[in-house]
Amino acid sequence: MSETKKVKDLKAGNTVDSTFLVMEKELKEFITKEGYYLQVKLGDSSGSIWAKCWEKAEEVASLFEPGDVVRIKGVVESFRGRLQLIFEPEGLERSTEPCNIAEYLSMTSKNIDFLFDEIVQTAESMGNEYLKQLVFSFLRDHDFINSFKKAPAAKIHHHNYIGGLIEHTQSVVAICETISRLYPELDRDLLLAGAILHDIGKTAAYEYSFRIDVTEEGGLIDHIVLGYRMVEEKIKGVNGFPEELSLRLLHLILSHHNYGEWGSPVKPLFAEAQALCYADLLDSQLKEFTQIQKYEETKGKEGVWSDYSRRLNRFFYLGRGKK
Amino acid sequence: MSETKKVKDLKAGNTVDSTFLVMEKELKEFITKEGYYLQVKLGDSSGSIWAKCWEKAEEVASLFEPGDVVRIKGVVESFRGRLQLIFEPEGLERSTEPCNIAEYLSMTSKNIDFLFDEIVQTAESMGNEYLKQLVFSFLRDHDFINSFKKAPAAKIHHHNYIGGLIEHTQSVVAICETISRLYPELDRDLLLAGAILHDIGKTAAYEYSFRIDVTEEGGLIDHIVLGYRMVEEKIKGVNGFPEELSLRLLHLILSHHNYGEWGSPVKPLFAEAQALCYADLLDSQLKEFTQIQKYEETKGKEGVWSDYSRRLNRFFYLGRGKK
Amino acid sequence: MSETKKVKDLKAGNTVDSTFLVMEKELKEFITKEGYYLQVKLGDSSGSIWAKCWEKAEEVASLFEPGDVVRIKGVVESFRGRLQLIFEPEGLERSTEPCNIAEYLSMTSKNIDFLFDEIVQTAESMGNEYLKQLVFSFLRDHDFINSFKKAPAAKIHHHNYIGGLIEHTQSVVAICETISRLYPELDRDLLLAGAILHDIGKTAAYEYSFRIDVTEEGGLIDHIVLGYRMVEEKIKGVNGFPEELSLRLLHLILSHHNYGEWGSPVKPLFAEAQALCYADLLDSQLKEFTQIQKYEETKGKEGVWSDYSRRLNRFFYLGRGKK
Amino acid sequence: MSETKKVKDLKAGNTVDSTFLVMEKELKEFITKEGYYLQVKLGDSSGSIWAKCWEKAEEVASLFEPGDVVRIKGVVESFRGRLQLIFEPEGLERSTEPCNIAEYLSMTSKNIDFLFDEIVQTAESMGNEYLKQLVFSFLRDHDFINSFKKAPAAKIHHHNYIGGLIEHTQSVVAICETISRLYPELDRDLLLAGAILHDIGKTAAYEYSFRIDVTEEGGLIDHIVLGYRMVEEKIKGVNGFPEELSLRLLHLILSHHNYGEWGSPVKPLFAEAQALCYADLLDSQLKEFTQIQKYEETKGKEGVWSDYSRRLNRFFYLGRGKK
Amino acid sequence: MSETKKVKDLKAGNTVDSTFLVMEKELKEFITKEGYYLQVKLGDSSGSIWAKCWEKAEEVASLFEPGDVVRIKGVVESFRGRLQLIFEPEGLERSTEPCNIAEYLSMTSKNIDFLFDEIVQTAESMGNEYLKQLVFSFLRDHDFINSFKKAPAAKIHHHNYIGGLIEHTQSVVAICETISRLYPELDRDLLLAGAILHDIGKTAAYEYSFRIDVTEEGGLIDHIVLGYRMVEEKIKGVNGFPEELSLRLLHLILSHHNYGEWGSPVKPLFAEAQALCYADLLDSQLKEFTQIQKYEETKGKEGVWSDYSRRLNRFFYLGRGKK
Amino acid sequence: MSETKKVKDLKAGNTVDSTFLVMEKELKEFITKEGYYLQVKLGDSSGSIWAKCWEKAEEVASLFEPGDVVRIKGVVESFRGRLQLIFEPEGLERSTEPCNIAEYLSMTSKNIDFLFDEIVQTAESMGNEYLKQLVFSFLRDHDFINSFKKAPAAKIHHHNYIGGLIEHTQSVVAICETISRLYPELDRDLLLAGAILHDIGKTAAYEYSFRIDVTEEGGLIDHIVLGYRMVEEKIKGVNGFPEELSLRLLHLILSHHNYGEWGSPVKPLFAEAQALCYADLLDSQLKEFTQIQKYEETKGKEGVWSDYSRRLNRFFYLGRGKK
Repeated sequence: MSETKKVKDLKAGNTVDSTFLVMEKELKEFITKEGYYLQVKLGDSSGSIWAKCWEKAEEVASLFEPGDVVRIKGVVESFRGRLQLIFEPEGLERSTEPCNIAEYLSMTSKNIDFLFDEIVQTAESMGNEYLKQLVFSFLRDHDFINSFKKAPAAKIHHHNYIGGLIEHTQSVVAICETISRLYPELDRDLLLAGAILHDIGKTAAYEYSFRIDVTEEGGLIDHIVLGYRMVEEKIKGVNGFPEELSLRLLHLILSHHNYGEWGSPVKPLFAEAQALCYADLLDSQLKEFTQIQKYEETKGKEGVWSDYSRRLNRFFYLGRGKK
Repeated sequence: MSETKKVKDLKAGNTVDSTFLVMEKELKEFITKEGYYLQVKLGDSSGSIWAKCWEKAEEVASLFEPGDVVRIKGVVESFRGRLQLIFEPEGLERSTEPCNIAEYLSMTSKNIDFLFDEIVQTAESMGNEYLKQLVFSFLRDHDFINSFKKAPAAKIHHHNYIGGLIEHTQSVVAICETISRLYPELDRDLLLAGAILHDIGKTAAYEYSFRIDVTEEGGLIDHIVLGYRMVEEKIKGVNGFPEELSLRLLHLILSHHNYGEWGSPVKPLFAEAQALCYADLLDSQLKEFTQIQKYEETKGKEGVWSDYSRRLNRFFYLGRGKK
Repeated sequence: MSETKKVKDLKAGNTVDSTFLVMEKELKEFITKEGYYLQVKLGDSSGSIWAKCWEKAEEVASLFEPGDVVRIKGVVESFRGRLQLIFEPEGLERSTEPCNIAEYLSMTSKNIDFLFDEIVQTAESMGNEYLKQLVFSFLRDHDFINSFKKAPAAKIHHHNYIGGLIEHTQSVVAICETISRLYPELDRDLLLAGAILHDIGKTAAYEYSFRIDVTEEGGLIDHIVLGYRMVEEKIKGVNGFPEELSLRLLHLILSHHNYGEWGSPVKPLFAEAQALCYADLLDSQLKEFTQIQKYEETKGKEGVWSDYSRRLNRFFYLGRGKK
Repeated sequence: MSETKKVKDLKAGNTVDSTFLVMEKELKEFITKEGYYLQVKLGDSSGSIWAKCWEKAEEVASLFEPGDVVRIKGVVESFRGRLQLIFEPEGLERSTEPCNIAEYLSMTSKNIDFLFDEIVQTAESMGNEYLKQLVFSFLRDHDFINSFKKAPAAKIHHHNYIGGLIEHTQSVVAICETISRLYPELDRDLLLAGAILHDIGKTAAYEYSFRIDVTEEGGLIDHIVLGYRMVEEKIKGVNGFPEELSLRLLHLILSHHNYGEWGSPVKPLFAEAQALCYADLLDSQLKEFTQIQKYEETKGKEGVWSDYSRRLNRFFYLGRGKK
Repeated sequence: MSETKKVKDLKAGNTVDSTFLVMEKELKEFITKEGYYLQVKLGDSSGSIWAKCWEKAEEVASLFEPGDVVRIKGVVESFRGRLQLIFEPEGLERSTEPCNIAEYLSMTSKNIDFLFDEIVQTAESMGNEYLKQLVFSFLRDHDFINSFKKAPAAKIHHHNYIGGLIEHTQSVVAICETISRLYPELDRDLLLAGAILHDIGKTAAYEYSFRIDVTEEGGLIDHIVLGYRMVEEKIKGVNGFPEELSLRLLHLILSHHNYGEWGSPVKPLFAEAQALCYADLLDSQLKEFTQIQKYEETKGKEGVWSDYSRRLNRFFYLGRGKK
Repeated sequence: MSETKKVKDLKAGNTVDSTFLVMEKELKEFITKEGYYLQVKLGDSSGSIWAKCWEKAEEVASLFEPGDVVRIKGVVESFRGRLQLIFEPEGLERSTEPCNIAEYLSMTSKNIDFLFDEIVQTAESMGNEYLKQLVFSFLRDHDFINSFKKAPAAKIHHHNYIGGLIEHTQSVVAICETISRLYPELDRDLLLAGAILHDIGKTAAYEYSFRIDVTEEGGLIDHIVLGYRMVEEKIKGVNGFPEELSLRLLHLILSHHNYGEWGSPVKPLFAEAQALCYADLLDSQLKEFTQIQKYEETKGKEGVWSDYSRRLNRFFYLGRGKK
């Protein structure tokens, strides 16, 4: 009997009748005969799966576009160690019910509105009126808020899901709050403005309307320079913004990856810039570590050691009591 | 007229009559004639200076030892771009008044008792009784407290002064508190115990009774393995301390420099160990950055750029309004 | 007809009736249906193979544990380019005959007792009574001898077999004997004591009772610090062991990987420590090289060049006359 | 007798009466007594020298500013292996005659107008009207031309003199012309537009009105991002400039240092960008090599080998017939 | 119906009747039964494919050798994602018609005779008679010309096809011509002689009669030292060749990979050697980049980004209008 | 009173009357006046010192050449922290007595004839007649023996003295003897032939008749390729020397620095080549370590730690009982 299932629960042999988001669509030539089959990447909040339709490929392909939600009836197969979903031409139907695409994408487990409020509160605590006005020129811009609450912080690495950017930003802000308590000689407002704005270029560097991918600008210009431009543009709108403060803030954006080999065209040349680097490093690397460790833990491997992780170049210690 | 002056205020041409701490004492052969002169490193809380006595070197040398406080009458000279203090054999007198040697060493600008209380409060907030008991077996050991409140965190790099260790430790603890709020899935008690104990090997790796230097153990074994041994020893005193918890905590100590090339014999194999690395990195590197930037700022160089800093491989931006 | 075969002689299509050592045992969920199958890693002195039983998995699994010797009747299949052994539930029988597990593990080709005698002779030639007494506190400790003669020197890299540790140790001792003839200014006894003891932490860092794997201590603490602790413990048992000598010997253990990135928490700070590094490097790297070259030679590839070796990042020259 | 001499011809003992450009001016505290002396960096087209006036420092300092031309009467001394010029308060006189400051700075040995014409000819040969229009929006902008003809290409490394930028640019253009003949599949116009514009950010990254130094923008933002912004600004003025072409050209600017560790925030992602990298590398590195080799050759060292060059980490072969 | 097809046009399911060049021939043991099958690597100018014959392997294998051209009738299959050609014992026939093996190998798309003429013209323009005579001792040696026009410049990387060496050489010569115009202080003849001869060792380092592979000398000695020897040998034949010039030219050959880690036993010690390095780097790296980019473009992937290229460690930007 | 003294015993203020070897001679322009002074580098077996004659420089310079032995009467001065010898024009006299220049150069402390005999004995033990004949074609060539017994193994690093090459060679041979006992699968004769010949290129790479310096060939070609050529030349003189054996032996010479960045144009491709690398590494690095440690020990610094050694990037542990 066909069932409504999430991607992560699919098993070979299941018959499926569920709605998914179309992330990619491609007509592929057969290797062994003339003609095309249809290959579709389907996703929901729990993951994604490749689906194939062997017949009437062009006709079926014309019924929908990436970004649509479709109802699929089909069968799950195992192919070269991975699962795929096979469906007949009549097994795909474009969903016409209104739906919230965000529900089909994987998302932060934290409360986005709470994260946003935390950031706003930090902004409100700033004493420097220029920086405060600048930060609020973003935080009160509805288009920006919209993107800022949805964007991921990466395609593959840490925080690679809807809401990843704001989750990461709030963490960096929180760490910088701690830093400014421990290092009272730093310019707190400059550091916090940098923390709030450091990654906003990611709202343009990724597409995340119905899948997470790198945009042309994201690949060719990168989020650091994109963010620099966005901040520079808004500074022009703040009357009397001091020139040195502007240079310092832009430098925080540009240098926040610390080293050239990590993507920053300049290295930090004063302490607030250096502080931001380490706050960003701490949160991005620790999140990546925990995401990969979690992935290894869910594999259910016996013994205290995980499989070898190529991305982190080590075995994780899973411990004895992991059950 | 002779004056009581601090080391940092000495100028060529001054005649001096002040008390200093003897940090090093050495008889040196003359290059141009037979015999020896006496060379002494003198210090107070503001810095240190080399002093020389050209005559009756052996006799004068027999009057005092490193660690003594001496009263010196002499003259400041400039020699190859550095200052030195020249005194006559009768210009040195061993001080017999009781004195607090700590007053002659450079020291943290933070309140050491406050830092200690902060750490104790964190320890008191722990829920895991084994870890709490272990941490307090250090924090209630008077010999340990004594060393822990005095030790530096380095000879040359960051926090290289009396109280440097406890200042650094409290910062790492504070950052780990923030981390454990942002990452509730981490074992808070393990992380905080690691933060409190991570550098305690430095109490044995440095000598700091009357100067800061590396001990034999500090050089040949290093603070990481020394700290590991100290923690392992105390764990034996905690009844029923779980074996896995013991391995995890010892691993935090051993891996807290993250990479082999930074001195850790193992790399972090679970998330709390990784978190501790970045908290330690943040505070140690940021402190080093601010110490070096401050040093460059005090030089009073004209223009917005500092001299080139070889240690950090960059020019600092000092800004326009530094006066 | 079923045959008694060694792992290395198995071919697809063979029916097998042999005894093997169970190295791992795991119940695995079917992908395509409910329930579990049984997966077992079987080994003998010539290698290891995965075996699978598709039915009554839980029941069969309850009959034996890793470390047991079992008699298996089954069929060899080729699956994704590798061989596997398929057996029926009744095809597995726990062996109850007494047997020497060591016969089922791959082992050094050298004579272990000869190697041990060589090391003992070197120890006997020592002039420094403290070092001699210390070394014999290991070489006359029966538990230690037992482990020392069995332990491997690695799980994957060089000398990764029973007796690997003692084989490697004897080579390092022999090289250090040569060094001490060429460099008479070195302290021969210190160097040789270091050579004998440098890797003894491996007796605790690996498990090798019925398979070779990394222990919890081995992964979280590593053999260098484990060996350091073992030596430090025994030094306490030697009356009047000089403090400087103790620091020097412990430093040899800790620094013997030469660089932090190779696992040593300190680098060599005097010549005997440096000498030990290169002796260890020579034997470990040369053994690894010959093991990998040998592996490539046995593939029977045509032409003078081996396949590309990723581990050594080169093609081997096999020569013209390799047949 | 006082003489009019160029900096490079000064010798200890000379009395001098010449005009120089003031590059830096600083009041410095005496070490050995109260008060200030005046320190001035003087230059002409052949080099620069520090000059000092021991008396009436504040008064003399008020007579002129950096960027002025002064007539100095004084005496050359050798001090710690370097020459310095000592003058009396009345030995300095601000020059009031009109003068061409450029004559006081070191300059390219090539003809700047010829270099500019070569670049214009290349621009005229472009077939793509958008790129051509863009390039000429720079090459016909008089303010830009002015800066472009004067700016250096570096403060310390290659082409570190007036006209260095245009000399380097013309070389890169010439190499890219050759490349586009050898690789006809590349987009010639895109590559040449990139070659012409790749370093224009240097017109803002350096100050070169009366000395060569890094500007605030140059240090905090760097020439790559500055150039990116200048090009982006001008693109807005070209009607209908295609979006993809714009992204490609901006990518050439941003990626032209090839690697992050050499300052590029993105690496080259298509062939024209990669080609530009190597053309830039060839000219900048080869110029640096020849400048340093020339410097070593002028030292007149005996034998075929130069002194060790730390900047290039080698001895140069000067050859036998260098006289 | 069987068809005459090029390798690049083969599809699974095709029946084939074409002639191919035999590049490799090997008897392989069956895994699942006794005996051997025959495995043959077949190629033509468009690529290569593995072919297999399951029966009478030894008999069929005796009919031909690598380097022969054979006519094959067989069927194309897909196996583990790659195509292979299956033929019956009677489906292979050794071609006895005279044929040009070069037609079966992939080849430069440029005109080899044109490239050679360009190089000769450069040689003719040389003013230094010793260098000119030396260069022509190669360019008029028929055996050398033959090899020089056929040899590849690599097995796997850039210019890995017949004529690759001469194509690369002519490019390097052209770039060096441009360099010598831009840097008139360089010794043009020395630079151009180096450019012409820098890679001639590749004529001995590769075999390319019927496939491209590394020779024994190529692997064990490498093309740099092989080329050095060839040049040194010919210098002996030039009467009165100046000793210093000889050392300089040989140094150009030896140092042309710039760094030890790129294969040069010495680094460039004067400007002509450094210039040659960058000319060689430019052409070899740019060609490799364009070859890999071209390969990715032909995959027909949707969207603006290529697959991830491991060799160049990036995604290529393919652009919007690639169809 | 003037005294006959060795260089290492000179002190400021001494008057000297001794014979020295002239290592360098140079006329230098005065900075502060017209004309030249004479600068001479003088040496004996204990070290070297710069000497200066302020008057009649040209005349005095014409009396002798580098390589001559001279008798000097003069006075030792301290100048910028170094000693120099000042003499009058009449204080220099060219020695006409026959003398052994080798007595004026620093030399190995081992017995050169003993070292040579050890090597000859190893050569005599070889079973492979081709290799044996080849090795003796060197060891019985009187010109070669002469150079081989005198040459240093370096200018600055390890074994940088007369006899350094043969001392190093004998050590490498001894280590390879040990290796071939431990690894009986290696080709002992090939390894030992490689050990004996690996550095013979140094006989041409250095000049050592009256000072140690790098020759033109040494700098431009380097000892590895020079040695390769010498061996290749002699192989031609051995009738029927097998081609593969020749390639293997030449590969040992070329690859013996292991990595490209250490100067080898190829990396080791079979086990004997790899073994030679580690034997060479062990002896060269250990000798360098002991030479630098010894240098630090002779400074007589107080305390257990040496000064910081930049060449080895560490402090040495000198120990407590060094007096």
